[in-house]
Amino acid sequence: MTDIHPNRPVVDQGSRHFLQLDHLHTSLADPAMTSMNFLNEVAIRFPDAISFAAGRPTEEFFDAADVHRHLDVFIDHLCRERAMTMEEARRIVLQYGRTKGIIHDLVARQLAVDDDIHIPHESVVVTVGCQEAMFLVLRALRSTPEDIVLAVSPTYVGLAGAARLVDMPVWPVQGGDRGVDLGDLRTQVHRARQTGLRPRAFYVIPDVANPTGISLDVDARRELLRFATAEDLLILEDNAYGIFAGEPRLPSLKTLDPDRRVVRLGSFAKTVLPGARVGYVVADQDVEDHEGGVSLLADHLSTIKSMLTVNTSPLAQAVVGGALLTHEHSLLTANRKECDLYQRNLSLMRAGLAHHLTPFTDRVSWNTPAGGFFLTLTVPFEADDALLERSAEKYGVLWTPMSHFYSGDGGSHQIRLSFSQSTPESIDTGLERLASLIADCC
Amino acid sequence: MTDIHPNRPVVDQGSRHFLQLDHLHTSLADPAMTSMNFLNEVAIRFPDAISFAAGRPTEEFFDAADVHRHLDVFIDHLCRERAMTMEEARRIVLQYGRTKGIIHDLVARQLAVDDDIHIPHESVVVTVGCQEAMFLVLRALRSTPEDIVLAVSPTYVGLAGAARLVDMPVWPVQGGDRGVDLGDLRTQVHRARQTGLRPRAFYVIPDVANPTGISLDVDARRELLRFATAEDLLILEDNAYGIFAGEPRLPSLKTLDPDRRVVRLGSFAKTVLPGARVGYVVADQDVEDHEGGVSLLADHLSTIKSMLTVNTSPLAQAVVGGALLTHEHSLLTANRKECDLYQRNLSLMRAGLAHHLTPFTDRVSWNTPAGGFFLTLTVPFEADDALLERSAEKYGVLWTPMSHFYSGDGGSHQIRLSFSQSTPESIDTGLERLASLIADCC
Repeated sequence: MTDIHPNRPVVDQGSRHFLQLDHLHTSLADPAMTSMNFLNEVAIRFPDAISFAAGRPTEEFFDAADVHRHLDVFIDHLCRERAMTMEEARRIVLQYGRTKGIIHDLVARQLAVDDDIHIPHESVVVTVGCQEAMFLVLRALRSTPEDIVLAVSPTYVGLAGAARLVDMPVWPVQGGDRGVDLGDLRTQVHRARQTGLRPRAFYVIPDVANPTGISLDVDARRELLRFATAEDLLILEDNAYGIFAGEPRLPSLKTLDPDRRVVRLGSFAKTVLPGARVGYVVADQDVEDHEGGVSLLADHLSTIKSMLTVNTSPLAQAVVGGALLTHEHSLLTANRKECDLYQRNLSLMRAGLAHHLTPFTDRVSWNTPAGGFFLTLTVPFEADDALLERSAEKYGVLWTPMSHFYSGDGGSHQIRLSFSQSTPESIDTGLERLASLIADCC
Repeated sequence: MTDIHPNRPVVDQGSRHFLQLDHLHTSLADPAMTSMNFLNEVAIRFPDAISFAAGRPTEEFFDAADVHRHLDVFIDHLCRERAMTMEEARRIVLQYGRTKGIIHDLVARQLAVDDDIHIPHESVVVTVGCQEAMFLVLRALRSTPEDIVLAVSPTYVGLAGAARLVDMPVWPVQGGDRGVDLGDLRTQVHRARQTGLRPRAFYVIPDVANPTGISLDVDARRELLRFATAEDLLILEDNAYGIFAGEPRLPSLKTLDPDRRVVRLGSFAKTVLPGARVGYVVADQDVEDHEGGVSLLADHLSTIKSMLTVNTSPLAQAVVGGALLTHEHSLLTANRKECDLYQRNLSLMRAGLAHHLTPFTDRVSWNTPAGGFFLTLTVPFEADDALLERSAEKYGVLWTPMSHFYSGDGGSHQIRLSFSQSTPESIDTGLERLASLIADCC
């Protein structure tokens, strides 16, 4: 081709081929990203290690035939209950679709059935997993450099990621043993305001949180809601694990939300199918414009979504919709087997820790979540990336340093243990290996 | 619930329930959003009007059975060609997946087969439609307030939307009759630099563009690439309609790209299935970090994606993958019937315009695209939203004012006519109605 263009300008090949990382968005130079890559890399480098690291749902009940069945159930539902012709139903599932989603009504019904949450269907935006839901909300709220979001520390790394993309600081609030230290929340909100910042929202996972496994008790939930109203804050409730929170189930923040302070973020990744990548946000807050007109926050999130992903795959939504229809809109019903499996694993973890860590009970401790995928182990030595690498290589067991879930310092002596993909055998052998590591370090 | 909490702080219901639009991100107060809503609204209010407005692909060959078949084909492919067990294949399709996608290799093969583009598989990131691909690239490039993207004017509205979400100005470049005015591009790049701005990339749809229908000729493509190299710009090539560009097919910008200046943005919405919401970006550019290490731009886009949507529904990807496998990696082969239908409609549009607009040929004109979904009609009166509303109400025909595709002034006397969802009957009747409107206005 160069023959055809003798006049092509001479290119300095050494520099012109390169973009400089310095000239790309700051999120890409964030050390947190390097550290997440490290975790993935360790898992890949030691494929035979027993993993308490991944937070993925069990694959034990995966069945490709379910996908076909759910899709057919949803199309049948459109024809029968929404009186569509087959052509119309096909268009809903196969063509470009409504930005706010095609299963918003089914999501609203699921929230009513499982969580006693009653919201207008129009306040639901179906998203590409919970991650997009977080981005939509933070993008809407981050209007000036003074806008910040507060979050329990340690917290889910996805929140920090979404915030980084909109250059929004995440201001940490101590989680403590109760899941959120409400005194510290008050202190941090006031301190932020004193420095000229504008706290917009507080992010929390009230049920069997990732990464700690802790659930907020009912009193803490109510106090948090009162605080949000008094301080004019939104609460971003991430409820990814609520269905697996164990008994007795506690009312979700959105269930207890008389002042519409709570934006609910949800995911069907753990309850229906990760491969569908379908989540949602419920945003029934009113937004007032310059002329006094009022609209739903959900409509504004939908506008942002129209510029981001246009709509969530209607095909993927149809599969989730079919699953909801099959189980009478209840994810509790749909996940009976999964709930039992996770609870069994939790019991085995607690028994296994008690058994294998007997020699160290004066130096190590662990919490006792009511359910979920995770628990927290506290050790008397630094549990950092270097130790994880040694653990994988020498002991054949993977876990997650809790420090990865803190934005600053913190969690240096804590480990997140995930048991959602474990088997009785992997729990027993894995904890035995972990005990050897601990013996080596103590 | 209020009985239980007598101490709840008194809430000023009149103000506390409201978020103020002023306190949300500026993208939400953008008049362009209101105008897009207006277009949707008109279509909903006049459902019986004949539409030359929507840019959606034809539904004539939609078949839900294809979805089932493609999914099975892809799973079978994983088992046979990648030697996976059924359990492993199921995991790929149903579990959380690789952020860069699970059909990256098939996308790379399609680009080789249809477009003679040869790139490493690792430079492909599978995205939630082309819209997410645009967001990823602009988010990466917009690192300071001085960073801008240039784009042909008029241009696809989705580019402006993605840019708005990262607060990145879109600097217009005259499109003119050739698709891009290269002299103006040069002028604008230099002018932007003189005002302290940093032009990072130039966005263009080289084949049968949305909204104009214009294709760049080969000379313009080559000159554009030389300019990009000389000026250290990236070219963002959106190729959503390339498969339908008509004969003879021209080499895409990425095909002609010896210096890796071109980031290719693609979509399977028009070529496989809109309902899958699967697109991609090819970013084979090198990025150099502080220590001189080199990585692919695609890896950095993947990092951003991990904070935005985590991964593109593997289920939806599998459906697209199955379609690619079924048609030997060729979207040209897969779309023979669709290509014929769009070409037939284009011929009917040209014949119909010539027939129905005979009385006005001294005052109206239209361009002659080689293919695609759209053509441009120029009229001697202002074709604005008010006229569109009158057209819908009084004449029963919908179209899109070209001014919607300009960021500032422009296009006031032009109309985008879409024919991708038309039938011979709707074209004839629709153009007859359009002729009545024109008679009324001339």
